[in-house]
Amino acid sequence: MIPRYSRPQMTAIWEPENKFRIWLEIEVTAAEAMAELGLIPKAAAEAARARGGFDIDRIDEIEREVKHDVIAFLTSVAEHVGPEARYLHAGLTSSDVLDTCFNVQLTEAADILIADLDGLLAASSAQAQAHDHGRAQHGIHAEPTTFGLKLAQAYAEFDRNRARMVQARAEVATCAISGAVGTFAHVDPRIEAYVAEKLGLRPEPISTQVIPRDRHAAFFATLAVIASSVERLATEIRHLQRTEVLEAEEFFSKGQKGSSAMPHKRNPVLSENLTGLARIVRGYAIPAMENVALWHERDISHSSVERMIGPDATVTLDFALARLTGVIEGLMVYPERMQANMDRLGGLIHSQRVLLALTNAGVSREDAYRLVQRNAMKVWQENKDFLTELLADPDVTAALSEETIRDQFDLGYHTKHVDEIFARVFGD
Amino acid sequence: MIPRYSRPQMTAIWEPENKFRIWLEIEVTAAEAMAELGLIPKAAAEAARARGGFDIDRIDEIEREVKHDVIAFLTSVAEHVGPEARYLHAGLTSSDVLDTCFNVQLTEAADILIADLDGLLAASSAQAQAHDHGRAQHGIHAEPTTFGLKLAQAYAEFDRNRARMVQARAEVATCAISGAVGTFAHVDPRIEAYVAEKLGLRPEPISTQVIPRDRHAAFFATLAVIASSVERLATEIRHLQRTEVLEAEEFFSKGQKGSSAMPHKRNPVLSENLTGLARIVRGYAIPAMENVALWHERDISHSSVERMIGPDATVTLDFALARLTGVIEGLMVYPERMQANMDRLGGLIHSQRVLLALTNAGVSREDAYRLVQRNAMKVWQENKDFLTELLADPDVTAALSEETIRDQFDLGYHTKHVDEIFARVFGD
Amino acid sequence: MIPRYSRPQMTAIWEPENKFRIWLEIEVTAAEAMAELGLIPKAAAEAARARGGFDIDRIDEIEREVKHDVIAFLTSVAEHVGPEARYLHAGLTSSDVLDTCFNVQLTEAADILIADLDGLLAASSAQAQAHDHGRAQHGIHAEPTTFGLKLAQAYAEFDRNRARMVQARAEVATCAISGAVGTFAHVDPRIEAYVAEKLGLRPEPISTQVIPRDRHAAFFATLAVIASSVERLATEIRHLQRTEVLEAEEFFSKGQKGSSAMPHKRNPVLSENLTGLARIVRGYAIPAMENVALWHERDISHSSVERMIGPDATVTLDFALARLTGVIEGLMVYPERMQANMDRLGGLIHSQRVLLALTNAGVSREDAYRLVQRNAMKVWQENKDFLTELLADPDVTAALSEETIRDQFDLGYHTKHVDEIFARVFGD
Amino acid sequence: MIPRYSRPQMTAIWEPENKFRIWLEIEVTAAEAMAELGLIPKAAAEAARARGGFDIDRIDEIEREVKHDVIAFLTSVAEHVGPEARYLHAGLTSSDVLDTCFNVQLTEAADILIADLDGLLAASSAQAQAHDHGRAQHGIHAEPTTFGLKLAQAYAEFDRNRARMVQARAEVATCAISGAVGTFAHVDPRIEAYVAEKLGLRPEPISTQVIPRDRHAAFFATLAVIASSVERLATEIRHLQRTEVLEAEEFFSKGQKGSSAMPHKRNPVLSENLTGLARIVRGYAIPAMENVALWHERDISHSSVERMIGPDATVTLDFALARLTGVIEGLMVYPERMQANMDRLGGLIHSQRVLLALTNAGVSREDAYRLVQRNAMKVWQENKDFLTELLADPDVTAALSEETIRDQFDLGYHTKHVDEIFARVFGD
Repeated sequence: MIPRYSRPQMTAIWEPENKFRIWLEIEVTAAEAMAELGLIPKAAAEAARARGGFDIDRIDEIEREVKHDVIAFLTSVAEHVGPEARYLHAGLTSSDVLDTCFNVQLTEAADILIADLDGLLAASSAQAQAHDHGRAQHGIHAEPTTFGLKLAQAYAEFDRNRARMVQARAEVATCAISGAVGTFAHVDPRIEAYVAEKLGLRPEPISTQVIPRDRHAAFFATLAVIASSVERLATEIRHLQRTEVLEAEEFFSKGQKGSSAMPHKRNPVLSENLTGLARIVRGYAIPAMENVALWHERDISHSSVERMIGPDATVTLDFALARLTGVIEGLMVYPERMQANMDRLGGLIHSQRVLLALTNAGVSREDAYRLVQRNAMKVWQENKDFLTELLADPDVTAALSEETIRDQFDLGYHTKHVDEIFARVFGD
Repeated sequence: MIPRYSRPQMTAIWEPENKFRIWLEIEVTAAEAMAELGLIPKAAAEAARARGGFDIDRIDEIEREVKHDVIAFLTSVAEHVGPEARYLHAGLTSSDVLDTCFNVQLTEAADILIADLDGLLAASSAQAQAHDHGRAQHGIHAEPTTFGLKLAQAYAEFDRNRARMVQARAEVATCAISGAVGTFAHVDPRIEAYVAEKLGLRPEPISTQVIPRDRHAAFFATLAVIASSVERLATEIRHLQRTEVLEAEEFFSKGQKGSSAMPHKRNPVLSENLTGLARIVRGYAIPAMENVALWHERDISHSSVERMIGPDATVTLDFALARLTGVIEGLMVYPERMQANMDRLGGLIHSQRVLLALTNAGVSREDAYRLVQRNAMKVWQENKDFLTELLADPDVTAALSEETIRDQFDLGYHTKHVDEIFARVFGD
Repeated sequence: MIPRYSRPQMTAIWEPENKFRIWLEIEVTAAEAMAELGLIPKAAAEAARARGGFDIDRIDEIEREVKHDVIAFLTSVAEHVGPEARYLHAGLTSSDVLDTCFNVQLTEAADILIADLDGLLAASSAQAQAHDHGRAQHGIHAEPTTFGLKLAQAYAEFDRNRARMVQARAEVATCAISGAVGTFAHVDPRIEAYVAEKLGLRPEPISTQVIPRDRHAAFFATLAVIASSVERLATEIRHLQRTEVLEAEEFFSKGQKGSSAMPHKRNPVLSENLTGLARIVRGYAIPAMENVALWHERDISHSSVERMIGPDATVTLDFALARLTGVIEGLMVYPERMQANMDRLGGLIHSQRVLLALTNAGVSREDAYRLVQRNAMKVWQENKDFLTELLADPDVTAALSEETIRDQFDLGYHTKHVDEIFARVFGD
Repeated sequence: MIPRYSRPQMTAIWEPENKFRIWLEIEVTAAEAMAELGLIPKAAAEAARARGGFDIDRIDEIEREVKHDVIAFLTSVAEHVGPEARYLHAGLTSSDVLDTCFNVQLTEAADILIADLDGLLAASSAQAQAHDHGRAQHGIHAEPTTFGLKLAQAYAEFDRNRARMVQARAEVATCAISGAVGTFAHVDPRIEAYVAEKLGLRPEPISTQVIPRDRHAAFFATLAVIASSVERLATEIRHLQRTEVLEAEEFFSKGQKGSSAMPHKRNPVLSENLTGLARIVRGYAIPAMENVALWHERDISHSSVERMIGPDATVTLDFALARLTGVIEGLMVYPERMQANMDRLGGLIHSQRVLLALTNAGVSREDAYRLVQRNAMKVWQENKDFLTELLADPDVTAALSEETIRDQFDLGYHTKHVDEIFARVFGD
């Protein structure tokens, strides 16, 4: 997580201010639950709610002495609340606060990521609708497809990612207030239930000192899968923008300089950047999974990992999704280039149709394949025109009439199901 | 995947026999759909169903020549079916067959893994029920918990993993019969729908030449998360079995030799082995994610990865889950050692209760902490008894009566919510 | 490791036959050392050398009973050697044999990989020399370079990889015969020295029960780096072969069918395959690193990992290097296409020269950049010719004479240092 | 990289201030080389050296407009230097500056890491020397070793890591000033040589627009291997500190609070933290390797990865090494506990000696194994004393005299080679 690749809404989640705010909410809510159960004086809970506050510099100062963040926090809170503060945190263990807070932060982050995905879906959908009649043809040319279908593919993929993100959010939307080893020895389970409900979480059915980390492994693995999809779409754009293809280009603003040395260059720098950001987010999945096997009722090894990848993974993916959305929204699309690129292969993109026409006319599949390939190779190697070659091949014309052969070269044949596919992806 | 860590039911899924069987089923079913739509003669589909077959050696022989596996397969099938075979595969692309087959194999593998998880859940549940009153206490001793709770934690974690596995299965349970670039140019979408239904799959809403690989990334990431949970439970057992702890032991059969050099050694070799297997399965998640960003309508780079990690990941995780189930079923549990280990700390495990009793009696949290810590340190450093020290500390006895102090040392206090937690995990 | 991506010389290293052969050599050599030190009868060592042998089926049979592979092996050897066999393995621990054997296998594998790299270096060098005057220009077109330089880059990179591989070989070329916890309690250190020398290894300065696994982590990390270089060169070829670029192509044999559906397609399938193989080999680095932190004097968790990635990583990388060498050797290179692609941009590839000429003529860098960019943009957007535009721009001609402007469009300017770079890379 | 896990000397390397300082040094030194070659006026180089400077806020401001960091930097420098600044950067490409700078930063980081390793080696050596007679015995008890040997193992491992770090530093200690595609079209190779020498780097033999990233992959893979060694030593300490073992403990300062709930707890929090930090650093190896396969003469995808893992990996590993050094220096070691733990197994740790004595006395290995195991099992299961059992077993006493049996229980036997091993590791 570096400012260059960060957005303020997401980084705010990981600021100390927000963390301590959540801690305080957990402690005060737990105190209210205790008061309701008659475990502590109502006045104590009311005092905590009314005067609860903290001072970050003061917390840092205390932590330097006691080397324990929650104790430092509680001391600072006590300085605001007064003597009633001694009822706070009663029976809780630090992890009750830390883990529930971490999960609150992750669900807040998930909400932003889901909104990011919604933005990307909207942009993909708009571009797909705008270009459903455009035609692009790529890689080693196979057969025609449309640019709209490419974006529909992206839409469908990110729609799946949205569902995964919703699922990942649910994974971590749990609350544990269960004490030092998860037995509720000093803390009534009803406190957990109360706090969970107030915070919009579910109680963790069984915890140790901590919330089990398979949940977080699944969460960060989901971010890694989504990052991989970002890489896919970014890679597509990089290919489309390369000089020899140039069917689409990232938006290039007026004042922007592409290269300090070569003024004409217009590189797909955003898409290349997205490819790198995807690598980073993917790399966090492994440490998150290594965090699962904590020793016994917990060790603290997961903590340093999460202090880093919690912000790093969510902030970077948020930035990447927003950047990708911008790229899609601003994409400059060149249908004439798509047509020109398709025309490059002298009609070879229709080879399979000819193959099928031959077999339909009774030629064996093996013979048909040989007939098509021998004419295709001449086109490939000698820059001939495929249709002309076929019409001049007596073995081909023995099986197919000229009209039938010409019919195989109709582009509309390839796009006849586009509407149906769009309906599948975007609904009717 | 090596025989040492494989089970036949899972490896059978990845045998050429099974793969070609699925290919044939796809081709024949597709032909039946075409026949029903009037696209090919009914007799062709019937011939394919009646005489469809293949010869693996023959396929290998042809593939060495044509260097294309699906063409080799179709040629062998044609040698069984006869001339009607030329209607097979009409309009399909190799990937239609390969990808749908791969997904069928993955769902078959998922079914075994789900059954494995059910076995592990049963074993965990049985052991948890058997030991819900045993007591174990670990790491740097914190507070008492029970061995049954440890197994209930494992149960809950693998129950989550089961749900993830069901979800992962659904991710890949799709079928694509959409042609060379996914446009259905030569193949009616109704064929896909027909085949999907017959094979128990859903049609892929939009594909390129291939089924999008974010699905498979999510699938293998799920296996990696489950493997991480295997590592967690295996690590727990390794700790419990270490000489100084020895609260549980893997079953050790009569003829088994633990060490070529040291006949007394009884190592937790299965659990250690499981730790290694978990690393392997986790390692496959990254290449699976790198497979997502295929170029344009597909490239073939994912294929070599999947040829290896398809079998390797599923076979190894299947083996690991079965092995772990065996370990849990056969686990030898030593409650007396648990008690002995708990007694080691001279009563320090009750320190928090004393702390709470002091604050309840009106001592400030900071003072209470100091009082407890100064007595705890004597126990820790000088092997004293915590209760004796507390009773001899006038600052403590000024706040608490002897009876109250003694009350804090009741183990039952810590286990009073075990039944409730069990009900949460296992239901009532 | 699957047969499809394996070569026999490398797989042979990992066959049981080879493993047991090495085990036997270690045991017999150790016995000879013991005999020389007077620790066991000379006759015992001689019997072991003369009659030493084993039977793999028998070993399997015994292992099924005793569940310990080294004991099973020794029993089988004893059945060949006779009663003198009881002196074998005296004071050794299984890991002495297993780990030294694993390192022997890894050095054997390293030797093949080094030879593979030599083959690849030779192929890269030959192709580089053959094409040092060819010219290619790629990506978003920047400035001209030559195809020979591309291969020289590959050569330099694989030359570094060769040095890394030699270093990785040295990392694992150690021998430990130090007993159950590495203290030489039952085994004289001179035995280790003797065996090490006979096997061409160095004694491990200090071992636990096992050879420390940081060595193997470094070894497999090196394979992963080399695999990443394979991916880089394969990616370059994939780009060069794409329809719109087509400056080079993988060799395509006569009988080969590129696609079951589209007979004209000639995909860079080998390079795509190499990309996937690289992902797989890279994925093994993480488990190898996770193997480092064994517990205490060792646990056995590394074993299952190494049983798989030992063969998988070396066999797959060997296959990949051999395949890549074949691709480079057979590469079809199209210089006319390189020229045609360079001509596409209407001379824009010379923009930086013009920029420099302007600044040399006293124009400020900012002004020069603006002058060049405004003409470049017309070329880019309106398909104009860069030279014509410049000559028509009064601000440009005010600073530069027509002759000077024309001089900036000389290709030879860009290749004048090619020989010097070649000398750096290949020596004089 | 977060402040909590950072040290200022390392973070300073990655501050904008240091980056721009290096950029300026590269530009000015390159200008001096150009002046010496007569390519630009000497006065220009002198002006750059004399008045060269930059303003970070100004750079940020310009970059927001032009979206190009090197152009923004050069503009700010020009504002300090005056009109002579137009000769700066002549013929260079941004990557010449960026990549050479990144390598300078990495070598600076490497120097700190090497110094860190020296500190850790000194601490390990001191502790090893201090405890070479202490005795520890672990895991499932095998045979006696000494605590000093454990630290000597760590020393040897980090000594290897130091050599790897030196090698990794050399990997990245290169300089490229070769222009837009690495052809030196606009920049004389002698400029590169001049700058390289002044900066203490080697010229990159052949570059594209960028320095090849296999170098950096090897660099970050090395950090990952070192991190794995950190994890190993940290794991050892965590095991030694667990309540039931407690042979060593992290230093625990007076004011420190171990747990907000349990005042007696003294957790190995630093070692647990180190385990997590190791996971993080290891996780960066994969994106670094994925950076190798840049497209053609470069794409910019590596940049975002390196902006993050450059600082993150070096800062985190620096912090981890320093923390680990502190842990080793302050470690509290408890030899009496080691002795007590060794005594726990009723003498079983001597079982292999008895086994060897039996075979030396002519008993077959299989029989000896059975004799030892049946007595060992009684000790294990019924808490008997191994020596007593052996002396009472007529089959044992038939082969060995009582004196011989007693001789096998001498601890000194196991430590007789410790001095020799120390000499191997630390030199004489």
